[in-house]
Amino acid sequence: MKMKTEKLTVFAPATIANLSCGFDVLGLALDGIGDILHLELTPEPGVSITRVTGADIPLETDRNVAGIAGMAFLEAATGYSGGVRIEIEKRIAPGSGIGSSAASSAGTVWGLNQLLGEPFGLPDLVGFAMKGEALASGAAHADNVAPALYGGITLVRSSHPLDIARVHCPEALHACILHPQIELKTSDARKVLRTSIPLSKGIRQWGNVGGLVTGLFTEDFGLISRSLEDCIIEPVRSLLIPGFDTLREAALAAGALGFGISGSGPSVYALTHGADTAEAVSRALGKAYDAIDIPYTLHHGPVNRRGIYSINPNT
Amino acid sequence: MKMKTEKLTVFAPATIANLSCGFDVLGLALDGIGDILHLELTPEPGVSITRVTGADIPLETDRNVAGIAGMAFLEAATGYSGGVRIEIEKRIAPGSGIGSSAASSAGTVWGLNQLLGEPFGLPDLVGFAMKGEALASGAAHADNVAPALYGGITLVRSSHPLDIARVHCPEALHACILHPQIELKTSDARKVLRTSIPLSKGIRQWGNVGGLVTGLFTEDFGLISRSLEDCIIEPVRSLLIPGFDTLREAALAAGALGFGISGSGPSVYALTHGADTAEAVSRALGKAYDAIDIPYTLHHGPVNRRGIYSINPNT
Repeated sequence: MKMKTEKLTVFAPATIANLSCGFDVLGLALDGIGDILHLELTPEPGVSITRVTGADIPLETDRNVAGIAGMAFLEAATGYSGGVRIEIEKRIAPGSGIGSSAASSAGTVWGLNQLLGEPFGLPDLVGFAMKGEALASGAAHADNVAPALYGGITLVRSSHPLDIARVHCPEALHACILHPQIELKTSDARKVLRTSIPLSKGIRQWGNVGGLVTGLFTEDFGLISRSLEDCIIEPVRSLLIPGFDTLREAALAAGALGFGISGSGPSVYALTHGADTAEAVSRALGKAYDAIDIPYTLHHGPVNRRGIYSINPNT
Repeated sequence: MKMKTEKLTVFAPATIANLSCGFDVLGLALDGIGDILHLELTPEPGVSITRVTGADIPLETDRNVAGIAGMAFLEAATGYSGGVRIEIEKRIAPGSGIGSSAASSAGTVWGLNQLLGEPFGLPDLVGFAMKGEALASGAAHADNVAPALYGGITLVRSSHPLDIARVHCPEALHACILHPQIELKTSDARKVLRTSIPLSKGIRQWGNVGGLVTGLFTEDFGLISRSLEDCIIEPVRSLLIPGFDTLREAALAAGALGFGISGSGPSVYALTHGADTAEAVSRALGKAYDAIDIPYTLHHGPVNRRGIYSINPNT
């Protein structure tokens, strides 16, 4: 296996899974917010996580999503007998609902792939990163790792077998995130879901998924806006997020195309047409949450269109 | 209101509703198979159906889908005080599952709109034609009338309020229909459906809807093929169609992208990449059904891309 370099630093973006109607299938990558991973090949086999800053996360390989994803990669990379040393700057708060574990898992396998001369394609990398996701959320989902790796907007048509497609992402599409500083674990957020749904709501949901995908391909922002609706998961899960309805009202009043829960929460997201509206919506979300006695962080920016990338490829 | 002409003959295409995963939301118009309607404006108000050939259908306005759709149009066309006389050549067998009632409803309102100088847009015409559909199937669905009027492939994101979008249709897409000559009413076919579904199957279905729409826009026939799956309705409804599994095997073995129930059946459909495969699939379907003691008709051809059209606009 050809080694391009022995060290690499990568930026792995935060992601919004679901996009309201597309529960468990749609996802979008964010620009300007993500984890930074420093990787260095080692002669010793295995994954060694030497340092994590920004979050209180175990360094043990088998208790760290990056460790598990990295091990899955190395086991498949039969031409390479060495290992990797990783330092992680967690800039995405764990448990925030914007793909914190996915960014570290995906960043690790993407970085390793670069260091070893790209032996694997993106679908393979998604598969390795999903092993990390299984540790984080109790299920091997691809709806955060797929957009992190592919960039833009992705559709996971099927997880088993894995079938991922890129959905066109209009350049004007921007995203806002408000992260209320409360704890809400993915595994807990899944527990509140009912295991069966009315057929009529299912029809409404897949009509919206079809509408959202059509709107994205045709850059019809009206259709995108009308399709950003979740009649199944959100009515239950939003009860776990203080101030959800107030935030929605504020986002829509400020011109958001749509508003909903990012992944399994507690972060909420809004999509907008253009940067100015994103800024206005972000301000409106902050103002609405100032009235509620919960600390929060805000982010807004364009969609990340290239996925994970190397920050200093030549060092 | 400007009258372009007083007489018009229109071709109104047969349609495939659902397209497997897109139950109640997706639809496709067929080329080369449809009803022929002769319309003539009359000074007397109302809709008078003077003749129906090819099927045993009531002539009374309020018991005929074309009559009801035509009345809905005339009630809304406030600038016109006359009526219309209609002769219908039914070339789509009623109850066949390829939008027989929708073709007559949609053809009537489209023809009236032409005769009166196009006072209404396509969404309005869909609304009028849906009134006819309510008589035929017990519910005002747009999943046949929308593709009949728009042509190509349509998505009905929502029926109430009506929200219709065009989905890109690759030129190479062809369709096959086998109509087993058994009676299966839409209202009966709806009765076998369960009113609730497992969430896991819902996710699979909207993943497939997203995949099918993405595959159509990107002309990715592999993705189209993988997405043409219905894990919710077909397993129940296909039991009402003798030989369904045999037909599926034959279609897929002959190279079909996918196979399923057209609308609520009993017709089944296959989609193919190209005309040659459509012919081969059609032959294979016929051969498979020859072994079953039920008469059938076969059709194959490209997708109708222009919707309803006038056959002799100047007479």
